[in-house]
Amino acid sequence: LKPRTQAQLAWDCGSGEWTLLNASPDLRFQIEATQELWPTEDAAGKRHSPIQDVILTGAEVDQALGLLLLREFHRFRVHATRSIRRILTEDNSLFGVLARFPGQVTWNDIRIGEPFCAGSVRLEALSLASSFPGFVAQQRQDELAADEAAIGLLVTAPTGGTLAFLPGIGAVSDEMLDRLSACDAILFDGTFWSNEEPKQIPGITRTASQMGHMPVSGQGGSLDRLAALHRPRKIYIHINNTNPILDEASDAHRAVRDAGWEVAWDGMEINL
Amino acid sequence: LKPRTQAQLAWDCGSGEWTLLNASPDLRFQIEATQELWPTEDAAGKRHSPIQDVILTGAEVDQALGLLLLREFHRFRVHATRSIRRILTEDNSLFGVLARFPGQVTWNDIRIGEPFCAGSVRLEALSLASSFPGFVAQQRQDELAADEAAIGLLVTAPTGGTLAFLPGIGAVSDEMLDRLSACDAILFDGTFWSNEEPKQIPGITRTASQMGHMPVSGQGGSLDRLAALHRPRKIYIHINNTNPILDEASDAHRAVRDAGWEVAWDGMEINL
Repeated sequence: LKPRTQAQLAWDCGSGEWTLLNASPDLRFQIEATQELWPTEDAAGKRHSPIQDVILTGAEVDQALGLLLLREFHRFRVHATRSIRRILTEDNSLFGVLARFPGQVTWNDIRIGEPFCAGSVRLEALSLASSFPGFVAQQRQDELAADEAAIGLLVTAPTGGTLAFLPGIGAVSDEMLDRLSACDAILFDGTFWSNEEPKQIPGITRTASQMGHMPVSGQGGSLDRLAALHRPRKIYIHINNTNPILDEASDAHRAVRDAGWEVAWDGMEINL
Repeated sequence: LKPRTQAQLAWDCGSGEWTLLNASPDLRFQIEATQELWPTEDAAGKRHSPIQDVILTGAEVDQALGLLLLREFHRFRVHATRSIRRILTEDNSLFGVLARFPGQVTWNDIRIGEPFCAGSVRLEALSLASSFPGFVAQQRQDELAADEAAIGLLVTAPTGGTLAFLPGIGAVSDEMLDRLSACDAILFDGTFWSNEEPKQIPGITRTASQMGHMPVSGQGGSLDRLAALHRPRKIYIHINNTNPILDEASDAHRAVRDAGWEVAWDGMEINL
């Protein structure tokens, strides 16, 4: 088995300015393992981080906690829905470490269906009809916008290449399938192989679909639902350590490879 | 230079139950690098973590954030002053991930000067007359107890061996010096070599002592202040990457070694 840290994506557009997709708790180590993301020093000895933009697709610990590890960096922008921003900054005083000086971090509110830019990349947020993290009290959830709980992203590179990023998704509508069919690459929720699998995890009594994850296998699984898509590279990401596709010797791994899917690994690069 | 992750201490008393001193953001990787801290499985396949107790000496990101990385573990206890607990759990909804099921995490309020136990180790908290983290609003600080902002610890092992843990300390009173002189080992704030050093760090305009850290060198520095202590092993911890003592070829490193101090490193073990 290849060791895999948590799902973390980053891109640049040749400009040396990088965008991170989510900020996992493993971010410090992922940055250390990726020379392109190291801070540089200019002639005056001033440090510059190549990380200019961070896009958050949800407010889960695994998606957002890494932001607090960027607090020693210079100015950067965080793109998130208004609801995700409010959960993090209004309900968590720790995020005050990102406001050590005025303008250290600026927040850009993502609106569902409205294109926005990060660096020279164009993006559009898709609502995943997911739910807020379990730590958000019901009363607080009622004050927030349900369609902003978790988002997927359609990413259009300056080259025109397109990528869909769907790290947690419970169902694929016909409309979404249509949009995915036109992409060059799809990074798709590979959390669980089967619907019953999460019950192996101590403390979890729900199925994959009850947790908002389409399983890979079975009826209504992603292998089945996305089988007709031939244009895009299809890549599983966000794979839980209980998922047998991580084991390259497994039947499950062979099944996804035979169906034309790839399994993401630490350090994987995708060119658009 | 040896790479050093953030200051993190753990001990067991031969019982296989471990206590962590603070929970740094690097905790996941520190656990992975330390086989004794890996979860085990019993005959029924149930996972048990050897980590039973976590003691927090403050509410800074570097001291507390790692708690959120223990959320997939079984029950454990967190020992912290009431003020530190309130900052983390009342002002940060993310800490709700530690209450996935009733009794997952129990909090024990540490009172200054009152002994308490973690595993089979006896502890006493020393108030460091420090300040609350910068992210805690002044109005909130007024509701909390100033002497609970940050603590040091006197640790007495079942063998009778004693250790002082002072990862951030602005000054050593005569009374504290007296207590330290009776210890077997002292782990002491080695953040900065000189008082002016923090100004090298972008965004910081204060001196080491203004930040609540006794520098190592100079008048009033720890080399000077603790020079008369001959009984304890003296070990610098919590060393910032700007501190020249990290470089074994430096004059600063030689100076602390010549004065009988050790410089902590990842994986260092201390027997009491």
